[in-house]
Amino acid sequence: MQLHLSTWEEVERYLETSKGIIIPIGSTEQHGPNGLIGTDAICPEVIAKAVGDETGALVGPTISIGNAQHHLGFAGSVTVRPTTLIAIIEDYVASLARNGFERFYFLNGHGGNIATIGAAFAEIYADYSLAIPGSNRPQVRCTLKNWWDTPGVQALSKELYGDRDGSHATASEVSVTQFAYPDHIKHKEMKQAGRAPRAFADADDYRKLYPDGRIGSDPTMARPEHGERLVAASAREVAEDYKKFLAQA
Amino acid sequence: MQLHLSTWEEVERYLETSKGIIIPIGSTEQHGPNGLIGTDAICPEVIAKAVGDETGALVGPTISIGNAQHHLGFAGSVTVRPTTLIAIIEDYVASLARNGFERFYFLNGHGGNIATIGAAFAEIYADYSLAIPGSNRPQVRCTLKNWWDTPGVQALSKELYGDRDGSHATASEVSVTQFAYPDHIKHKEMKQAGRAPRAFADADDYRKLYPDGRIGSDPTMARPEHGERLVAASAREVAEDYKKFLAQA
Amino acid sequence: MQLHLSTWEEVERYLETSKGIIIPIGSTEQHGPNGLIGTDAICPEVIAKAVGDETGALVGPTISIGNAQHHLGFAGSVTVRPTTLIAIIEDYVASLARNGFERFYFLNGHGGNIATIGAAFAEIYADYSLAIPGSNRPQVRCTLKNWWDTPGVQALSKELYGDRDGSHATASEVSVTQFAYPDHIKHKEMKQAGRAPRAFADADDYRKLYPDGRIGSDPTMARPEHGERLVAASAREVAEDYKKFLAQA
Amino acid sequence: MQLHLSTWEEVERYLETSKGIIIPIGSTEQHGPNGLIGTDAICPEVIAKAVGDETGALVGPTISIGNAQHHLGFAGSVTVRPTTLIAIIEDYVASLARNGFERFYFLNGHGGNIATIGAAFAEIYADYSLAIPGSNRPQVRCTLKNWWDTPGVQALSKELYGDRDGSHATASEVSVTQFAYPDHIKHKEMKQAGRAPRAFADADDYRKLYPDGRIGSDPTMARPEHGERLVAASAREVAEDYKKFLAQA
Amino acid sequence: MQLHLSTWEEVERYLETSKGIIIPIGSTEQHGPNGLIGTDAICPEVIAKAVGDETGALVGPTISIGNAQHHLGFAGSVTVRPTTLIAIIEDYVASLARNGFERFYFLNGHGGNIATIGAAFAEIYADYSLAIPGSNRPQVRCTLKNWWDTPGVQALSKELYGDRDGSHATASEVSVTQFAYPDHIKHKEMKQAGRAPRAFADADDYRKLYPDGRIGSDPTMARPEHGERLVAASAREVAEDYKKFLAQA
Amino acid sequence: MQLHLSTWEEVERYLETSKGIIIPIGSTEQHGPNGLIGTDAICPEVIAKAVGDETGALVGPTISIGNAQHHLGFAGSVTVRPTTLIAIIEDYVASLARNGFERFYFLNGHGGNIATIGAAFAEIYADYSLAIPGSNRPQVRCTLKNWWDTPGVQALSKELYGDRDGSHATASEVSVTQFAYPDHIKHKEMKQAGRAPRAFADADDYRKLYPDGRIGSDPTMARPEHGERLVAASAREVAEDYKKFLAQA
Ligand code: NI
Ligand code: NI
Ligand code: NI
Ligand code: NI
Ligand code: NI
Ligand code: NI
Repeated sequence: MQLHLSTWEEVERYLETSKGIIIPIGSTEQHGPNGLIGTDAICPEVIAKAVGDETGALVGPTISIGNAQHHLGFAGSVTVRPTTLIAIIEDYVASLARNGFERFYFLNGHGGNIATIGAAFAEIYADYSLAIPGSNRPQVRCTLKNWWDTPGVQALSKELYGDRDGSHATASEVSVTQFAYPDHIKHKEMKQAGRAPRAFADADDYRKLYPDGRIGSDPTMARPEHGERLVAASAREVAEDYKKFLAQA
Repeated sequence: MQLHLSTWEEVERYLETSKGIIIPIGSTEQHGPNGLIGTDAICPEVIAKAVGDETGALVGPTISIGNAQHHLGFAGSVTVRPTTLIAIIEDYVASLARNGFERFYFLNGHGGNIATIGAAFAEIYADYSLAIPGSNRPQVRCTLKNWWDTPGVQALSKELYGDRDGSHATASEVSVTQFAYPDHIKHKEMKQAGRAPRAFADADDYRKLYPDGRIGSDPTMARPEHGERLVAASAREVAEDYKKFLAQA
Repeated sequence: MQLHLSTWEEVERYLETSKGIIIPIGSTEQHGPNGLIGTDAICPEVIAKAVGDETGALVGPTISIGNAQHHLGFAGSVTVRPTTLIAIIEDYVASLARNGFERFYFLNGHGGNIATIGAAFAEIYADYSLAIPGSNRPQVRCTLKNWWDTPGVQALSKELYGDRDGSHATASEVSVTQFAYPDHIKHKEMKQAGRAPRAFADADDYRKLYPDGRIGSDPTMARPEHGERLVAASAREVAEDYKKFLAQA
Repeated sequence: MQLHLSTWEEVERYLETSKGIIIPIGSTEQHGPNGLIGTDAICPEVIAKAVGDETGALVGPTISIGNAQHHLGFAGSVTVRPTTLIAIIEDYVASLARNGFERFYFLNGHGGNIATIGAAFAEIYADYSLAIPGSNRPQVRCTLKNWWDTPGVQALSKELYGDRDGSHATASEVSVTQFAYPDHIKHKEMKQAGRAPRAFADADDYRKLYPDGRIGSDPTMARPEHGERLVAASAREVAEDYKKFLAQA
Repeated sequence: MQLHLSTWEEVERYLETSKGIIIPIGSTEQHGPNGLIGTDAICPEVIAKAVGDETGALVGPTISIGNAQHHLGFAGSVTVRPTTLIAIIEDYVASLARNGFERFYFLNGHGGNIATIGAAFAEIYADYSLAIPGSNRPQVRCTLKNWWDTPGVQALSKELYGDRDGSHATASEVSVTQFAYPDHIKHKEMKQAGRAPRAFADADDYRKLYPDGRIGSDPTMARPEHGERLVAASAREVAEDYKKFLAQA
Repeated sequence: MQLHLSTWEEVERYLETSKGIIIPIGSTEQHGPNGLIGTDAICPEVIAKAVGDETGALVGPTISIGNAQHHLGFAGSVTVRPTTLIAIIEDYVASLARNGFERFYFLNGHGGNIATIGAAFAEIYADYSLAIPGSNRPQVRCTLKNWWDTPGVQALSKELYGDRDGSHATASEVSVTQFAYPDHIKHKEMKQAGRAPRAFADADDYRKLYPDGRIGSDPTMARPEHGERLVAASAREVAEDYKKFLAQA
């Protein structure tokens, strides 16, 4: 069930049986010579939809712009500042909490978001924690899951790409977008990219370290049929994880 | 050309011939008993895509959550605060300006966003205006267009719905979403909603004035084939308007 | 009744019969070769005082600095950023709400403020809308009226200046300031200014488009006696509008 | 020379001979049973005008709402938060600096503003201090003067009221407003107010300590002719102080 | 009793008999050729500890970075912006208030902090004052004391250094740090520094006025045994002052 | 070399040979029945000092209050909001960058800080990344190291405590504080605490899950001599890591 394709009365009925929602969160940033700029938003969006189809979970609209400051050396990349992203997450959660949602499951597609999402959760919780006890506000609980961070997806990546999957503009994520958008598959010759010699800092630093944008990957290995399997593997495990989150005491 | 389905090298080539981009901006909020919660994001997204297909303009990812505080009395509505939306627009524009974009055309789907988008433009410009003259930053120019605010769309609305289109959860916008998502058409009996007796204030006030969420509309008249015509009409006129914006001295 | 010329006990008594207040809001910015920099604050201040005298409404202190970033290319112009103006309006309203005011009528003198005032209202309302239902805070209601935006003022402008009133540094507003400050009438030869070829962006852009600051106006036609008539016309219609606002259910 | 009653061309000429400006800053807050709510804005505004008339200094529009949170227990009081006031002062100074102003003389009418004005100056300076050396921005210099804080005014207060002037809603400041607004003199029986037993905290605390709003004063002693003398005394000494500020190396 | 060296159960017991806490607040900034960069944090920390030992008062962790923008022309100086410092103080106070603390006594070591601490208190109080009456939050009360600002310390400074103590990098404060850190006494030849010809503005301005960082002082006169006496004198008087603060009605 | 015990001239000389600094960052929060509230600040402070002594690295003042919202259910815990902590880190880094520091090594003592420190780094970098290329600002590089997150410390924890070290109020960290503050060792009977059944949310939630504040630990096993060994092990490995950070191309 997708929030943006539902009516408010449908959501009201949904709340009678569940207080949970899945929120895809990604980024809009370069993904190397054959990767789509929307890759990190597309992946969690597609997988969240699959989870929603499977479990009946409500899926909110994707936060498609994340923390991508380090990719701004490449045309078309878009970032919000961490403090902006914190505000977005706060308002999103507060809006839904007002009408009864209590469990927020963020399905993430971008490593660069992880720290800031954690900070946003703490900012939200701090509002509760700093309040004098006795407030009658219902409590909210938030969690973060990276779509690729499951045993099945890791095993599949290993099976398909060995040590050539890399860590940015990976063959895995490019495969998922090829499955999701078969009309937008890009073909480009390139060798496996170099691995990360050290952590990057700002956008100029990143581009100096990774001239075509990739880190350690060989996305020429990506195939739409891999994407289909990756989506299925991730959705299955994420669905289990989401159910556990709802079942928490 | 859609930014999220492009590579950075494609965007780099695009910048050789154009400094412009179209950014759909909408909202995630109740749209009455048969309207989708995503209506205000879906409409500009679909129309912007049509404009991009027609003109070759680059279309950025949709800002799908806007100012919807007044709809929070209905389940599933999501808002960001105006100051959050200002920050989002600032960061979005600054990101693209860094790599050479200069003309930002926001295609809007939600009346409640208009004021804040205007404030955001002024906030962006103020950064330039408060700087001591002689800075070598390239200037940016932003503009706002509501998708429904063209002679052709207005005429079509009148032709199709007479005085029953209303001003929220309109037959027009519901038609556009039915065209865009034919599998998600909702059927619901209802009479034309009452008109606005006065301006609404906060969410409780809005719900008191408009018990099922609609303002003055009869969205049972919506049809997907109307949506197709509305999209075509809007896209044609928006494309002209966008070209004029790019051609400005 | 003017707030700054009243005592707190007088305001306490006023609150026994009315929960409303009129707040003039303007700007401090160039108004062409013979227009006062304070024009946009002076006009609503003078008219609000007339409305207060006529209706007994309380008139708060004028917010005299608004969004004027686009005028910063001309010496003496002063702006606050939109986010600053939002904070000012929030605090102003919250202060008075604490002691019982509920209806806030902003009488505006500057087109550049309109968007941000709308955003400020939404920011204020969002605080209420995001709160869990059941808070016992009294609700506030805010509205915006431009002093020139009444049938009588428009008709008078047409009668006095035909199509030479323009849209910035207008003959109308200069007349109002000449009526208000007869000792500060400036004489200056000039032709009617050119009209707006397109929307302006930042301060450098504005000055390039409008070299002496005016847009489309011929303020040499301004006369203090016109100002007197304009103030009277506006005050009459604003008073009616304000009373309707108070009478809203 | 008053900024709001000048044209931009007049300000441009003024800048050829002076880079200085006087900015009155006050508050809108209860001033006891016979004191005007606008007292703290009126006093520096009137005195600044006198200084401007005497010295030719440019006087900017008054910041009439200050830090008055502690007075919110009394109807009609209005505050901005300290962080809002900091933003106002920053934007005001940056606007004028853009066109060449360098010396900002704030003439203050409210003790409760002093700390925040100091913080605002430090916030402005920090922007310069944190910049890497070599920026070519012209430096600004800000100073604060309380209108009552001169030997002449102190002596006059002692002469007129002995130890009955108090520290809020003083006979002195009420006299100044009576001189400035003779049509708004209020008559009210009351005894000298009690002195401050300790520092106040928030609004409820203040009202508990000072039930009618005054601290230690007997404003029944106020007379408009005292006000005239106080304005003259203050203006004379402030003018000297302002000239020294401009003459600083 | 030092908060950072206590357990939560010890603090819980402490709250049964006292709602007060002492919070040292200082700065990290140049203190001339022989003064430690930590001087302004060390002094109140040492004295607060002595007060705590004497009175049983709880002493919180030192806020060791303050407003030092004007010292940034000298290597090793660190500042937070005033708005950052306000946020720190707000969060610090709100955290402790949540568990029952009500009286906050800030013992300050840096003149440059005074204004911002005052602004922070007003920001905290404003949250209470702007709330609609009837909130059941316990009220907090904050106060500021400069460690050197007591009759005994002033007399001792006069006795020890006559008119050579100065106002920054003073012999007094250097003595306190020599007493606190005898292994870090620095020896350096220098003459008494020049006095302040005028107020400083930003960091470049400060360094131009005070080339080695000192203002009016001769810290070659500093001795650890002076420091011991200064700490004792200050602690004795601060302890009295703190007790009075707790005893306030 | 400790910044707060150095003079500005010593720092100036230091900058001739190194652009690096180590900044301890911790928290002020409950650490169970026998753990000090300052534990998370004390540990990195002590270890950073040891690293500084060993390598000659400059050590800045400790950021002793971190993200501890989840501990506010226990008396004496203090938090700053994540957005406040981001501002602190930004200002701290910018201050030192102004005088030539380029490499910032944060030695962290608190798991709850990790996300926000990452967000702060991204916020800092975003300022560089969003600037138009060609700015001549020197680039900064920041890194984060948790003191316990080294092979040697992990091995020692296993050797000393087996599986009884836990994850909050650990035997390891209590040992370090016992070594650092032998006069403040607390004795308290208790059993090993329960492990984390799930992630905690806000302060009330945390206390419900962990009634005495500990997570999975048996800090009765803590000994000062363990602390000495842990400090030595961590310092040795952190020193190596810091040198590698400075040596990065
Ligand atoms: Ni990716
Ligand atoms: Ni709509
Ligand atoms: Ni105007
Ligand atoms: Ni006063
Ligand atoms: Ni000092
Ligand atoms: Ni710990």
